[in-house]
Amino acid sequence: MPQFLAAFEVGQSKVEEERRQQICRFGRWMYRRGLVVACQGNLSVRLDEDRILLTPAGACKGRLAPEDLLITDLSGAVLSGAGEPSSETQMHLLFYRERPEVHAVCHAHPPTATGFAAAGRALDQPVLPEIVADLGTIPLAPYGTPGTWEVCAGLEPLVAEHDAILLESHGVVTCGKDLATAYYRMETVEQFAKILLTARTLGGPRLLSSREVEKLMAAKAGRWTARPQGSVELPLEADARAYAAPGARRERTPFSRHRAQRRNAR
Amino acid sequence: MPQFLAAFEVGQSKVEEERRQQICRFGRWMYRRGLVVACQGNLSVRLDEDRILLTPAGACKGRLAPEDLLITDLSGAVLSGAGEPSSETQMHLLFYRERPEVHAVCHAHPPTATGFAAAGRALDQPVLPEIVADLGTIPLAPYGTPGTWEVCAGLEPLVAEHDAILLESHGVVTCGKDLATAYYRMETVEQFAKILLTARTLGGPRLLSSREVEKLMAAKAGRWTARPQGSVELPLEADARAYAAPGARRERTPFSRHRAQRRNAR
Amino acid sequence: MPQFLAAFEVGQSKVEEERRQQICRFGRWMYRRGLVVACQGNLSVRLDEDRILLTPAGACKGRLAPEDLLITDLSGAVLSGAGEPSSETQMHLLFYRERPEVHAVCHAHPPTATGFAAAGRALDQPVLPEIVADLGTIPLAPYGTPGTWEVCAGLEPLVAEHDAILLESHGVVTCGKDLATAYYRMETVEQFAKILLTARTLGGPRLLSSREVEKLMAAKAGRWTARPQGSVELPLEADARAYAAPGARRERTPFSRHRAQRRNAR
Amino acid sequence: MPQFLAAFEVGQSKVEEERRQQICRFGRWMYRRGLVVACQGNLSVRLDEDRILLTPAGACKGRLAPEDLLITDLSGAVLSGAGEPSSETQMHLLFYRERPEVHAVCHAHPPTATGFAAAGRALDQPVLPEIVADLGTIPLAPYGTPGTWEVCAGLEPLVAEHDAILLESHGVVTCGKDLATAYYRMETVEQFAKILLTARTLGGPRLLSSREVEKLMAAKAGRWTARPQGSVELPLEADARAYAAPGARRERTPFSRHRAQRRNAR
Repeated sequence: MPQFLAAFEVGQSKVEEERRQQICRFGRWMYRRGLVVACQGNLSVRLDEDRILLTPAGACKGRLAPEDLLITDLSGAVLSGAGEPSSETQMHLLFYRERPEVHAVCHAHPPTATGFAAAGRALDQPVLPEIVADLGTIPLAPYGTPGTWEVCAGLEPLVAEHDAILLESHGVVTCGKDLATAYYRMETVEQFAKILLTARTLGGPRLLSSREVEKLMAAKAGRWTARPQGSVELPLEADARAYAAPGARRERTPFSRHRAQRRNAR
Repeated sequence: MPQFLAAFEVGQSKVEEERRQQICRFGRWMYRRGLVVACQGNLSVRLDEDRILLTPAGACKGRLAPEDLLITDLSGAVLSGAGEPSSETQMHLLFYRERPEVHAVCHAHPPTATGFAAAGRALDQPVLPEIVADLGTIPLAPYGTPGTWEVCAGLEPLVAEHDAILLESHGVVTCGKDLATAYYRMETVEQFAKILLTARTLGGPRLLSSREVEKLMAAKAGRWTARPQGSVELPLEADARAYAAPGARRERTPFSRHRAQRRNAR
Repeated sequence: MPQFLAAFEVGQSKVEEERRQQICRFGRWMYRRGLVVACQGNLSVRLDEDRILLTPAGACKGRLAPEDLLITDLSGAVLSGAGEPSSETQMHLLFYRERPEVHAVCHAHPPTATGFAAAGRALDQPVLPEIVADLGTIPLAPYGTPGTWEVCAGLEPLVAEHDAILLESHGVVTCGKDLATAYYRMETVEQFAKILLTARTLGGPRLLSSREVEKLMAAKAGRWTARPQGSVELPLEADARAYAAPGARRERTPFSRHRAQRRNAR
Repeated sequence: MPQFLAAFEVGQSKVEEERRQQICRFGRWMYRRGLVVACQGNLSVRLDEDRILLTPAGACKGRLAPEDLLITDLSGAVLSGAGEPSSETQMHLLFYRERPEVHAVCHAHPPTATGFAAAGRALDQPVLPEIVADLGTIPLAPYGTPGTWEVCAGLEPLVAEHDAILLESHGVVTCGKDLATAYYRMETVEQFAKILLTARTLGGPRLLSSREVEKLMAAKAGRWTARPQGSVELPLEADARAYAAPGARRERTPFSRHRAQRRNAR
């Protein structure tokens, strides 16, 4: 082998080694912070055009060693590694095939966000500006039996335009330009769910007005090029500011509207 | 002693030493993750046909040393160890006597799942596919005074067909083919309780339909041989999909049905 | 000094050193587990008949060094140590003066139990057998301005017969025969509050019947001699078992009774 | 350079080095305790009259190195450091310009307190004496698009008289005479929000009476000189003691009053 090719291989394997270490580190964080328990969840990273590095089935993500990971091609065929690939591998590959700029995918079961997913509720209201600016809406992919193509069928229409998606009756999946970004988005989704749950207990969140959302979108267009601006379909309501009375504001949420209907039906 | 027997003994004591280390490690995890506080909970492992290794009474499970553990036979008589065995020893032995394939038992008081147990509510609705596939239902064993045979009387009819059981007004017990499995099931029960509590706050969880549950059971039959398929008695309701309107769906849960009765009774 | 007295002094100072280390360790635990934040809470240990070792005012309990602690007599006069004693010192001394068998006191602000204290609600229902057997009831001491004698005035009638007490609009205080016991009781109170909050969200806890409570008291009488049996004033209701229907059971809790009154008053 | 000036510079750079270490340490605490996730939040410290040391934009605060930090002047111009300053820099500078005694500012998104901020609710009821004595009220600054002057416009009227402020639909900002004080106040705000949420679930918190609040203010005047006494605008209600019946007490909270109005409107 010519010397420059050997040096290239050494460089490549060094990058791969770093990626393996990175998956183990974020796996530990995911487990310690309670975003998964037991052997739940999986993490993957794109190594190059054809190869994906990902976590094996049935292992605690808090205790992975770099050599436990597998490499597959974009169809899911195992190229190296001793274990079985995660039963959710096809979900990861869906992101890599559809989105060339995505280099990492994270799947977990954070308890509060999964509570929303189990209740069949998306996180799609414009409540926190930083969520709107980074993630737009967080939609709910319809239920599919885990480990089957049903999961991908529900996800497919959503993958192109969203970086974080709730999986009905199941959990959450996030992606990003690198593993840190995908992982941090998982933390962010769970935190948003916690904030929203508290706000609902207190009478419902204040919704950002259409003008406020537009300002955030404009700022975002300048900073974020990886995602098209049109991907965000927020319920652009009239200015919440115009409805300062708490009673009036609360009537504007889907919840209180529903409650009002039930009350009237008695 | 012939040499091969000495070698056998050395091998056996090495296995025992590993089991002791393992109980101490999962004890620390159990305490650090808040599944127990103070001196609550206990862990045990089957050493061989006649001997069980288990945690002593009245010690913090987060600070055990390998030499603190006791060995008893299947009747509970202490074979070695200085302390007193846990007052819940008989609960552990019940699993070992009834289920030859069970090699570890874990008892804890995780706060959310114990909240369900204190409210007298089982975790028996088909909400998350991974819970259905691994644990089926999580039933509620009726209350018995701790440390008496009443606890076992309530558990006995449930032990054969369940790997995780709520103990009314008390806590949770799980078992498995090894300690990691039993421990991870404890984490999973608490996470499920958290998810369910959130989903209830948001209007109630979406229930899996009978067809969805059957698919999971079929897949499970292939993967899990340790537990008979018939052990799972899920409330197989008609397809939830057919009841997409949130009001209609909610009427199908036992809670809302109860609430409706009270409303009508006014 | 004769040699045996010197040896005694060395032994005594070794015990004191161990006590200092112990307070620092449980201070770290208290902070890391979220039982206090910032510079809240305090810990103390009885060194001998006249001397109490306790934490200084205004320090984070998660970052104490052994030399930060103070020694006072039973009136609160500082015998050694550079800082100012905690403003809650008199609360600690009250326990040491009234209860010769108490050797440690722990005060903290665990968020859920303090939520009960801020709502003016005691933790006095017989819900979990292990709480009944160890702590009996956890009463609510009426509010007093912190750092004044008002706090002690509210506590005084309760100290003789309780090992854990809620302080209205303030926090929790626990005591024990050693620091581990007092600290573990603080963890246990917070866990009980979490369990009770969850159970209330689910329709209310199942209450232990008078017969069930009596059984626990009888068992306790044999194991615990430090506390008189009569100290526990549990609301001994008729057998909850006789009220199996959830509606009926719920009517028996003070909450639902109150709710029923409000409903009738409409 | 004369020797004494060199010694002064060495001393100064040693202080700066300590401040850098301190920001990294409290950044780790902030992240580990869940007061921020992902790359949220920022911390700053006053180095001298003209220079502020602060965290860079877009970095995880749990993984900062001392050399990642930036130094700006009071207008926000970068004096040293490679990264971009936080988009919230102007919020920090507002405190340093308006309050000469403030030497540190902390901004985070603790989930419970941010839930109050997302619901548009201040933490301004006199519930816990230690909150009243240290922070007075915690007001809600009206929403402004993050990273714009709107945020400062909403904060400006509140900065002079408050050490902890909720930012509507966004998060929390605290300040103090040093970084430990500012950080501990962030922990305290989140703990207060948790306690209040629990108390509300249980029927509402007991409010301190005007006499109780006045006593705390009087004690505070003696201990705290940095903040003017008049800064605290508490809703001084009549003695809550006079309203001992739970129903009566609950009618006094804004929540129950609102609920009562809705009930009457049916």
